[in-house]
Amino acid sequence: MRMYDIIRKKRDGGHLSAEEIRFFTEGLVNGSVPDYQAAALCMAIFFNGMDREEIADLTFAVRDSGERLDLSSVKGLRADKHSTGGVGDKTSLVVAPAAAALGIKVAKVSGRGLAHTGGTIDKLESIPGFCADLPEDVFIDCVNRVGVAIIGQTRDVAPADKKLYALRDVTATVDSLPLIVSSIMGKKLAADDDIIVLDVKCGSGSFNKTPQISREIAECMVDIGRKAGKKISALITDMDRPLGYAIGNALEVREAIDTMKGRGPEDFTELCRELTSAILYLAGKGSRSECSDIAAQCISDGRALAKFREMIAAQGGDPDVTEDYSLFGEAAYTYEVRAPKAGYIASVDAEGYGAASLILGAGRNTMKESIDHTAGIILSKKTGERVEAGTTIATLYSNRRESLESSAARLLAATAISDEKPAPRPLIIDRVE
Amino acid sequence: MRMYDIIRKKRDGGHLSAEEIRFFTEGLVNGSVPDYQAAALCMAIFFNGMDREEIADLTFAVRDSGERLDLSSVKGLRADKHSTGGVGDKTSLVVAPAAAALGIKVAKVSGRGLAHTGGTIDKLESIPGFCADLPEDVFIDCVNRVGVAIIGQTRDVAPADKKLYALRDVTATVDSLPLIVSSIMGKKLAADDDIIVLDVKCGSGSFNKTPQISREIAECMVDIGRKAGKKISALITDMDRPLGYAIGNALEVREAIDTMKGRGPEDFTELCRELTSAILYLAGKGSRSECSDIAAQCISDGRALAKFREMIAAQGGDPDVTEDYSLFGEAAYTYEVRAPKAGYIASVDAEGYGAASLILGAGRNTMKESIDHTAGIILSKKTGERVEAGTTIATLYSNRRESLESSAARLLAATAISDEKPAPRPLIIDRVE
Repeated sequence: MRMYDIIRKKRDGGHLSAEEIRFFTEGLVNGSVPDYQAAALCMAIFFNGMDREEIADLTFAVRDSGERLDLSSVKGLRADKHSTGGVGDKTSLVVAPAAAALGIKVAKVSGRGLAHTGGTIDKLESIPGFCADLPEDVFIDCVNRVGVAIIGQTRDVAPADKKLYALRDVTATVDSLPLIVSSIMGKKLAADDDIIVLDVKCGSGSFNKTPQISREIAECMVDIGRKAGKKISALITDMDRPLGYAIGNALEVREAIDTMKGRGPEDFTELCRELTSAILYLAGKGSRSECSDIAAQCISDGRALAKFREMIAAQGGDPDVTEDYSLFGEAAYTYEVRAPKAGYIASVDAEGYGAASLILGAGRNTMKESIDHTAGIILSKKTGERVEAGTTIATLYSNRRESLESSAARLLAATAISDEKPAPRPLIIDRVE
Repeated sequence: MRMYDIIRKKRDGGHLSAEEIRFFTEGLVNGSVPDYQAAALCMAIFFNGMDREEIADLTFAVRDSGERLDLSSVKGLRADKHSTGGVGDKTSLVVAPAAAALGIKVAKVSGRGLAHTGGTIDKLESIPGFCADLPEDVFIDCVNRVGVAIIGQTRDVAPADKKLYALRDVTATVDSLPLIVSSIMGKKLAADDDIIVLDVKCGSGSFNKTPQISREIAECMVDIGRKAGKKISALITDMDRPLGYAIGNALEVREAIDTMKGRGPEDFTELCRELTSAILYLAGKGSRSECSDIAAQCISDGRALAKFREMIAAQGGDPDVTEDYSLFGEAAYTYEVRAPKAGYIASVDAEGYGAASLILGAGRNTMKESIDHTAGIILSKKTGERVEAGTTIATLYSNRRESLESSAARLLAATAISDEKPAPRPLIIDRVE
């Protein structure tokens, strides 16, 4: 088998066999396939796509390229939710403890944030003392005892994806459905869950810009999950606006806690309920509407919050942050961003909001940078709301005084104000079950 | 300027500016653009093509990426002919001396052969004593004195093409019109001729498989040549059959000499006449039919041969090879390839014939291999001719006895014999003037 022939076959629109795909991923990892051949294949895939069978084969090859988590010693049904990444998306902080409070085991391995999207681990590390680097046996023990634990990636999971992603990132081949799907699902399937609920984002804050593409991606991921023997479903949700009002690590944890006290933002509360409900439904806990009711109740009546506190304590953090937000610390500077004119917030570029937060110190451009957990943005006005000239639309928090104005400018550039009130858009755009 | 943006622009069907194209070729040569990004761009060009302006800009960038030949001290009009490469194509051996005999200066820098196509330099080196590595001042002196000299490449011409071609070769991006054209013309324009006549091959022995593609390539090359201020035209010629009867270095030189004695193969003689005539026409030596007559006369009446002998002598070779073919030496083994059944030679895969010759030792697979100048093939029957079972269709010459049978098998596999006589095909398929 020669890599040249594999590139040529895909270039000419052919179907790659499972063997050819594994030849590629194994060569990528062991170095026998040079980067330039991998780059050429990625571009050929960008243009000619892959059919469902090829995408599944690539996903499984990525999954099998490295180590896999073994959760067989966790008792009970194991579930995970995975988001394709968005701005202000702190749903894991609510969904994981809520599901655990309802008897589902959540052994979650999460990522750190890069560029304009935040990572769950970064958010949790804003809690004083919280440790995301548990040894695997301690992690599994936590899950068995508490029902939920969330740690950062430690194993060498899916190294083929690591190499491939780094290459795609510099060769303009990120936006390719087969490559997106196999990257996400290859890593996800290397974990060891029975149930997977996917939150496929759609809109400016995501790489899926249209509902059509998002649905295609979601269908493809659900199809592959089923082939791998998982109970799986997907929600397609709006990312043309940030989720909730908080962007930035400690600020988002506070909003998640508020939500588990029954006073969270409407959109964010709805999404947490729907994702938790989707897990319960796949776990056979009742009809759709029963699952939705159970989830809503659990999130607002204090059970999810109690489980969240238990998890924080088990992972070395101070659970009292849920009652005393001052324990998170505070940014030295605040800055109010005001509407330059009257009108309605017609649309928001969520990616731009993420970038504004990054400027404040809430994110990192490269994996080597550190994060300011207190930095971020609290929105006062969201899409559809009326503003007058001078109305505060957001408050910025940062320890870098010099970043405030450029962040404000970035945020304003991402905010369209118009005379007409925009039509309301649903948060849950579609479902693939 | 970032290479990422250039790749992305071409990936999305955009037009690359001259600056962007030079950023790419300069980066390729100085190493600031990594191979994987170049490979991704090549594949994007494969799919989305380039418009005429982009191809011209890429050609000029390739031309300017290295050293250029300075022929300003050569007196008189300078002409060159260039073939896109074929099997049994020894036209330069006749056209160069014929044009020189008619007062046009030919300062030709030629290549060595690789894979199934032969190189002019390899052919000339089958003449005892012939030296293709003249210092540049000696080369120019030869051209001024004799009118013609042919040497191998010495300067670092078009290094961007060298890198790019090596990369295309392993990433399945060779068959791309913009990349083919800019590669050929970039190198050609780095020479310093007034007149260029192109011989664009079409058919199985060439990378241009159809007359349509060949015409497109020819038009594009002529267009670029004019933009560079050259007098230029192109012939599109049949390469669904080898040219003449001889394949292999010394065997081809002998056939070229026969042709300059007026007893060459009909197809080969015709092509030499037409290419020489095209040079004369561009040089303003008369009407088309006048130029054709002058060329035919010069090739057959001994003037071209006399000039060829002068050139051999000036480059250190023994001119008596033209009268005594035994001076070329002889292969130790011969082998007759016989028709397996009766019928007509319906079609021939010229590339397969080239490969059969390579097996005999007449070519090289990598630039490090040496060549057996006496090895090769003399065809007895060509497309359209009648054979009986057992008729000799070719004789193989080699010093490797063990290669004879596999070469014969390769040649037979490339020969289709059928009951029906194929329709005759013209040698000159089209012209771009």
